[in-house]
Order: sequence, then C-alpha cells, then structure tokens
Amino acid sequence: MDIALLGGTGDIGEGLALRWAYDTSHEVIVGSRDAERAANKAEEYATELDSRGVDSSVAGYENGEAAARADVIVCAVPAYHLTDTIESVADQLDEGDVLVSPAVGMKRDEAGMHYNEPGAGSVTALAADAAPDGVSVVGAFHNLAADRLANLDAELDVDTLVVADDDDAADTVSSLAEGIEGLRPVSAGGIANASEVEALTPLLINIAMNNEKMHDVGVKFH
Amino acid sequence: MDIALLGGTGDIGEGLALRWAYDTSHEVIVGSRDAERAANKAEEYATELDSRGVDSSVAGYENGEAAARADVIVCAVPAYHLTDTIESVADQLDEGDVLVSPAVGMKRDEAGMHYNEPGAGSVTALAADAAPDGVSVVGAFHNLAADRLANLDAELDVDTLVVADDDDAADTVSSLAEGIEGLRPVSAGGIANASEVEALTPLLINIAMNNEKMHDVGVKFH
Repeated sequence: MDIALLGGTGDIGEGLALRWAYDTSHEVIVGSRDAERAANKAEEYATELDSRGVDSSVAGYENGEAAARADVIVCAVPAYHLTDTIESVADQLDEGDVLVSPAVGMKRDEAGMHYNEPGAGSVTALAADAAPDGVSVVGAFHNLAADRLANLDAELDVDTLVVADDDDAADTVSSLAEGIEGLRPVSAGGIANASEVEALTPLLINIAMNNEKMHDVGVKFH
Repeated sequence: MDIALLGGTGDIGEGLALRWAYDTSHEVIVGSRDAERAANKAEEYATELDSRGVDSSVAGYENGEAAARADVIVCAVPAYHLTDTIESVADQLDEGDVLVSPAVGMKRDEAGMHYNEPGAGSVTALAADAAPDGVSVVGAFHNLAADRLANLDAELDVDTLVVADDDDAADTVSSLAEGIEGLRPVSAGGIANASEVEALTPLLINIAMNNEKMHDVGVKFH
C-alpha cells in the first residue's frame, strides 16, 4: 500500500514514516508544503533506515503530489492547519482513498494541557467535513508519544484508538497500525466518539508532566 | 485508616469496599441515605469476605454517620447526586478529612457515551466547590470497571488517575489506591486537569462496546 504523510517532516509524521518503512513493505511518501524540504526529510529517513540495514524507498514530494501517489493519506499537521491542508490536496484525492487524522486541538494553562474541542465536535469531525465526497476519514494515531515513535530502538507496546464511520476504511487503517511492531489498534466506534479519543492526548501530556519516568507515556487498554 | 464509602451500596462503592476490606487492614464503612440498606450491604460484603477467609469488620451507617466516623470519605454516588450528598454530610466532616470524587457526568447518544462537562469544568471541581473549608478534595477511581473491581477473583493490573490541589491529600489517596492489589495510582496533576481524566471513562465504555473481550476494560499508562 502507498501511504502519504502530509506534514511528514514533523514529529508525528517522522515517527510513522520511519516505523512503516522499518516494519512493513508499504511505500512511504513524505509530504510537505515545500517539495525540497520533503525530499530532504525523505533522504534523512532513508539514511537512518539504511544505517539499520533496511533498504527502504522513502520518497518526498509536495503535499499534493504526495497525496496523488497514495491510497492512504495521513494528515500529520497541526489541528489549525488541518482544513487548509485537506483543501489544498482535495483535487489529488481519488474516490476510495482513506484520509487519516491524528491531530488534536489543545490549549495549555498553568495547570497543564487541555482538550480544545472544535465546534465540529472533534478534529476528526473537522477532517470529515473537509474531505471530498468518496474519501473516508479515519481518526487514529492521536495518542502516540512522538519521540518514542520516532526512536526505532524504543519498544512501543502501546495501543492506538481508531474512530471511523466507514468499517472498510477503519479496517485498512487498523491493518496499517498492526503493521507497526508493538502497536495495537483498538476501536472506539464512530467519528461521533472522536472527542473522547482526542482528549486522551492532553491527559497523556499531563501524566508525562506529573510523573517521573513517564516522559514518553503511552496507553494500553486491557 | 477509616474509609467511608458514601453510596457504598452502588457498584463502584461495592468494588472499593470489597477490595479495601480484602487487601488492606483499613476500616471500611459503607454509607447510604438509608441506614438499614447500608447495614444490609455491609453484612453482605462481610459474608462475601468471610467466605474467602477474611475476618473483616465492614460496618454500615447512614451517610452522615459514615462520614463522621471516617478520615477519608469517598463519594461513590452518581454525578447528579454529588453536591447534595456532600452538603448533606458537611457538618460531619472534620478539618483534615479527605473527600474523594470518583464520579463522572456522561450522556449517551446512538454513537456511544460522551463526557458531559459540568459548568464547574469537571465533577471533581464541583466536589471541591461543595466541600467545606479545611476538607481537601481528590479526584480518583473514575476509570475502574465496576464489575471487575467488585469481583475479587478478577486480576486488576490497571492504573487509576489521581488529581488534587493538595499534595498531602493526593498522597493519602494514592496510598489507599496502592493498597489494592494490582491498582497503581498515577498523578494527572491538579483539579484543573480533572476533565481530561473524567473524559477517559466514556472512552473506556466506548472501547468496551466496540471490541470483543473488552467488557471490563481498564487502562495502563507506560
């Protein structure tokens, strides 16, 4: 499968790109608003993978070109860039493509991090509203610590929650998650349930801030 | 330590009462609005514990009497009864007592369960507003599956999040949590961070509803 990571030069994009390239045979495409930056990052990831004996083919393109080449498009951009980013690549999305939203809106105060619920109910719902007809949206990969994900020496052994209204799209993304060693997809139901999933991210940050040795904390449901 | 469970005849109260009586030497006091009901439930718990060879002294009293006898008072009542319950026992609380709030406000729609944030920001904040001066409030035990907690044959191996503005009170409640085998307290910071903690409860219910063999799902952070 061909996976594009729009904003694949950022921290969560980097982690997913490296893990998929390292653990699976999927084609990984790094997207950025700047084609040169995408190409440089793709080169950097390929060098990192090569140093671990993995002959990967990570490519880098401008976001629209990256989206055009992929079946699954992960919008690894901050929540406030999500709608713009989806609109900027809408013409490059094909019917049947799956758009994945890992973004969470948060605000910080002196106590810690808090969920900042968008008017649409969740960031995943915002993505669903912005996506063209025929493109299914799946919320996933919200609750992964970026440093831990990007460090191929770090064991994951964590879960990621998946929300979607289209079961086939949910299955596609769950399979991609399962391809990453130590990552287990767990369904939280439909997109109407996304806000509770997204609110887990500020909670994890608050836990990281208030406990020793939990800097890169993840979650496991059992 | 003397622990009162107001609403200790309900499901989460039952689980905490049984676990503390079974795993620790703390005095467990079951509270109810109805003294006879409290006494009957306490008798029922004592019978269950006796059948497991534990000679416990679980007592049952009307909520006010239960609160008067305890150092730590757990308000194991539904969110919509929380303020009333605290006000009804306020005169029986002593300076230095610790009030514990495990309640979560939720609403259900066709997609699943959702967090219903009170105007105060969280149910824990509501409890803090209702508590008399000199009584510290701690949010804890929100995210425990009641059936699993109340089944002494079930292994827990889960975490419970603790939020408090008073470090000593947080330590007291964390120690009580640690006394239960397989339960680990994890700090999520101050009461201003309680809403993300409480939002985890509807998420766990949505996970239970959408996955096989996760009926009594708990959470572990690592």
